[in-house]
Amino acid sequence: MFPELPSKLLTAAVEELAKLPGVGRKTALRLVLHLLKQPREDVEKFGKTFIVLRNEIKYCTVCHTLSDTEQCAVCSHPRRDHSTVCVVETVRDVLSIENTQQYNGVYHVLGGIISPMDGVGPGDLTIAPLLQRAAAGNIKEIILALSTTMEGETTCFYLYKKLRDFPIAITTIARGVGFGDELEYTDELTLGRSIKNRQPFVGEE
Amino acid sequence: MFPELPSKLLTAAVEELAKLPGVGRKTALRLVLHLLKQPREDVEKFGKTFIVLRNEIKYCTVCHTLSDTEQCAVCSHPRRDHSTVCVVETVRDVLSIENTQQYNGVYHVLGGIISPMDGVGPGDLTIAPLLQRAAAGNIKEIILALSTTMEGETTCFYLYKKLRDFPIAITTIARGVGFGDELEYTDELTLGRSIKNRQPFVGEE
Repeated sequence: MFPELPSKLLTAAVEELAKLPGVGRKTALRLVLHLLKQPREDVEKFGKTFIVLRNEIKYCTVCHTLSDTEQCAVCSHPRRDHSTVCVVETVRDVLSIENTQQYNGVYHVLGGIISPMDGVGPGDLTIAPLLQRAAAGNIKEIILALSTTMEGETTCFYLYKKLRDFPIAITTIARGVGFGDELEYTDELTLGRSIKNRQPFVGEE
Repeated sequence: MFPELPSKLLTAAVEELAKLPGVGRKTALRLVLHLLKQPREDVEKFGKTFIVLRNEIKYCTVCHTLSDTEQCAVCSHPRRDHSTVCVVETVRDVLSIENTQQYNGVYHVLGGIISPMDGVGPGDLTIAPLLQRAAAGNIKEIILALSTTMEGETTCFYLYKKLRDFPIAITTIARGVGFGDELEYTDELTLGRSIKNRQPFVGEE
């Protein structure tokens, strides 16, 4: 693309940014030239933030989400409902659900889903710690909030089999036609299931 | 957007990336989570690259482009034509022209264009050093490669007035309908000028 950038320092910085997913060399160059216009101390802070993050971030010993401390802010929060556990694949799912401000329970981050094609088995996920949490006896409900893919369904079923003997309600998040979606463009499986799992209409005035 | 990220370190890193132009918080989060999956030494290198760049980059004393050394790779190259100087607005323009592999002369980076609206006058640009280069007597041609905006044209005219008394040919890059452009969608000014400045047809077989 740029056969001969006039500066090796510039090339190095462009290449580092272009390693990030979805960032091409043209975008990287634009961002690097932006950084060069910032005060030295700001760029120093920019660079150091990632090093500090990588070196100091921990995984919560209870729910395995990213955390600054041994127990994350959610797990150590006194007003969260610690008897309801939402099982998700990744940290991003935790952030997405937190973002809805509709959930007051705690989480369990599996670290992925069972996918024999990608060589991910139950042993690669945090399933054993989840079973320990279930065995500890303080949990009333476990919500399975995994992807609606084949792998997600397989993982849900695997977890269900492991968890069904505990006195815990196992639920999954509601599947159906999303708000703002048009029926015409909804896939048949989703539409079919949403008719089968129809719910009483709640009129709001 | 994310009212309560579970980690302050994560929040800090997302905010640093989201300061970059065109990077939103969702993208920033995706990039930070990607960085967290990389080995520590890679993230260390990533962060340090920008700090080193910002602290060590220089501006070429001859042409004012970004450079690792006092004189940039182009200005110190023995096989470049040092009697032809292409005047551009920014370092990005240098890279764009280098990228075409069609130019063997050297450059002069103005650092912007004259724009009274933005408070940029001739004194804010590297016009005085350009006149010094012209006065040194080794330059045969100066190519003005500025934007085709009102400000660009004004700057071209200003430079022309300052340079016309030197025994130097003053040229500008060709304006016209771009390759791959359809006439129907070309603006009237460009199309009008491209008819006025028509050139002999060179048939290639």
